[in-house]
Amino acid sequence: MSNKIPRRTWLKAAAVTAVASLVGNTRAEPQDPTKTQGASPGKLGSRSPFEQPEKKPSDISSRTPLQDLYGTITPSDLHFERSHAGVPVIDPEKYELLIHGMVERPMIFRLKDLKRFPAFSRIAFIECSGNFRTGKTTMTPQEICGLTSQSEWTGVMLSTLFREVGVSPKASWFLAEGSDAAVMTRSIPVSKGLEDGMIAYAQNGEAIRPQQGYPARLFLPGWEGNTNVKWIRRIELSDQPFMTREETSKYTETVKDGKIRQFSFDMDARSVITYPSYPQQVEKGWIEIRGIAWSGRGKIDSVEVSTDAGKNWTKAILQEPVLDKAHTYFRHLWRWDGQTTEIMSRAIDDTGYRQPTLQQLINARGTDMGGYHVNPVTAWVLQQDGTVLFKPEKWK
Amino acid sequence: MSNKIPRRTWLKAAAVTAVASLVGNTRAEPQDPTKTQGASPGKLGSRSPFEQPEKKPSDISSRTPLQDLYGTITPSDLHFERSHAGVPVIDPEKYELLIHGMVERPMIFRLKDLKRFPAFSRIAFIECSGNFRTGKTTMTPQEICGLTSQSEWTGVMLSTLFREVGVSPKASWFLAEGSDAAVMTRSIPVSKGLEDGMIAYAQNGEAIRPQQGYPARLFLPGWEGNTNVKWIRRIELSDQPFMTREETSKYTETVKDGKIRQFSFDMDARSVITYPSYPQQVEKGWIEIRGIAWSGRGKIDSVEVSTDAGKNWTKAILQEPVLDKAHTYFRHLWRWDGQTTEIMSRAIDDTGYRQPTLQQLINARGTDMGGYHVNPVTAWVLQQDGTVLFKPEKWK
Repeated sequence: MSNKIPRRTWLKAAAVTAVASLVGNTRAEPQDPTKTQGASPGKLGSRSPFEQPEKKPSDISSRTPLQDLYGTITPSDLHFERSHAGVPVIDPEKYELLIHGMVERPMIFRLKDLKRFPAFSRIAFIECSGNFRTGKTTMTPQEICGLTSQSEWTGVMLSTLFREVGVSPKASWFLAEGSDAAVMTRSIPVSKGLEDGMIAYAQNGEAIRPQQGYPARLFLPGWEGNTNVKWIRRIELSDQPFMTREETSKYTETVKDGKIRQFSFDMDARSVITYPSYPQQVEKGWIEIRGIAWSGRGKIDSVEVSTDAGKNWTKAILQEPVLDKAHTYFRHLWRWDGQTTEIMSRAIDDTGYRQPTLQQLINARGTDMGGYHVNPVTAWVLQQDGTVLFKPEKWK
Repeated sequence: MSNKIPRRTWLKAAAVTAVASLVGNTRAEPQDPTKTQGASPGKLGSRSPFEQPEKKPSDISSRTPLQDLYGTITPSDLHFERSHAGVPVIDPEKYELLIHGMVERPMIFRLKDLKRFPAFSRIAFIECSGNFRTGKTTMTPQEICGLTSQSEWTGVMLSTLFREVGVSPKASWFLAEGSDAAVMTRSIPVSKGLEDGMIAYAQNGEAIRPQQGYPARLFLPGWEGNTNVKWIRRIELSDQPFMTREETSKYTETVKDGKIRQFSFDMDARSVITYPSYPQQVEKGWIEIRGIAWSGRGKIDSVEVSTDAGKNWTKAILQEPVLDKAHTYFRHLWRWDGQTTEIMSRAIDDTGYRQPTLQQLINARGTDMGGYHVNPVTAWVLQQDGTVLFKPEKWK
């Protein structure tokens, strides 16, 4: 928990103000607001008026301000949004989840039924598969990849519900259907449901937010966001995928030789430096490079940071506990000499997968690969005046 | 992640609705709101209008609604509040922390200075030392012990700042002083600061809330809430405690034989069942008993649950990861026969300490022990009609 930094160096670098002359003079303490009674305790806390982080909404999505955040939990009101026909209002008393198809006993579960089953809890991220934007230097982490967020999710394991309805051993896929106006549907292998799928009804300690699927959503840790069907109302078991709109016209990727990749569920390992990043400003001297790394396939094994445009790489510190399929906070202390340079990070997960460069992605999948599952190493340019700019790499 | 519950039993117990007649009839799906475009993505998410958890404010505090929560994270706006002169408004640009006294180099740190140091992050609880109320049967977990909450805290380790200012080897205590109108002060051993103390400026991913000390607070994992001085503006190193108002007239406990216990910092292990609890209603059959357990001295080793008024005890399931000095979520599946009974939980931490009964506390400290550090096993009475009442035990 401590670092071996030469003390004198730190003293200078941190731009702290020595106040030796104040020793023993209590009146010289920092200015303070101790003369006025403060606000009384309330029913709900609130943000400081000096801190107003916000998502960036478009017509269909709203992005988490990663550059304003700390640690790994995303405040629930800043969790990214992506919907296909907006956010429905659902009365929890009227909510029902039907599970049918290749099962022994089709059943409808009310919300209170779901809550009677064993309630499992885990901290994990959800990321939209279309989570990469580039094109200009004045882009924030929020704009580049703000469609990933992390919560502590609580709910009932799908394996529990599948046992309850008696899923046929022949069932290999299920349809997950939302009760939004898009009637969002995806086909999911039963094996994933049994492995770690949940019906989540709580997020960060409280009822799930409407924007994340209130009163209940499918949660498939590590799988592309759109498969985590929100406002879930129906699960149908089958022995084949359903070939819904979202998995034929959308959420597929062109790969080389004119072929299309379908059912690309897992979100590959990725990282992003959130400090320093655009539009932050830095000073010469010690800088702690910070960011998050995550993998849909398991735990983050390590994060490597380069401060010389990719020539040399050093392992960053990972904040414990490193959790499975979870945003992992990394830090790397570095002394900047004030010269223009590029800093970047790359994640390695416990399958041995290493976050690729954009060029490696293009080599593997071609320039027509589309916007899904694009997880390249990204770079920030530190300029001599301390401004930080995104380095938008050429795609085509 | 799965449980070996006889399937048929579950079927009956969970009161689910069999809908075999609906198989193959897609029009018979649950009622749904799929015909209306929903709300567009926004800058901030919000709670469902059907879910409005609230704290219970008094003049000096405001309690977390534990019975409404899930998992282990407390939403920041539901984190308990306890202040001695209300919540001050502090401009982060004007914020300063002075560290002086027995140090080589007294220094003032601005908020941006604090953020330049290595930023450590951990999930842990804070609990007020006066966190026990009893007296009537219609009390919720919030009313009994809602002065404990959990967050992911981020900030700079005190050990880092102490090295920066060059704390004298002779310094054994420090004063922590808040910039609220009470100028809240506590004396803290330097050893605790070096062990795991932090100056926290972030909570659950974002800037700390004003009610929890914006822009920065002292965070001493596992130690009684009032020592975690909020809005911290001054730390003075010394070779003795400062004997402030809060540690002479307050925050001490009468023990037996007319003696007073002072500097009782650690919060002992404790647990509370949050489901079922007052004012919830339960049905005969399978019930998952749920709650949280925590210890200021380390990790929770185990939680034992009794469903027969303390005659027999069974180990509950602990939700992984079990973290140091953190709320730990426990669950115990139990089949209720519908007869009146008492359910209770007791926590055992990794020091071997076992949560005491109120009688054991009284035996050890006397009936005049006051309201601090009272962490008894508490019981809920399940009545035949499914109502749940608190069992307020006699104190004097």
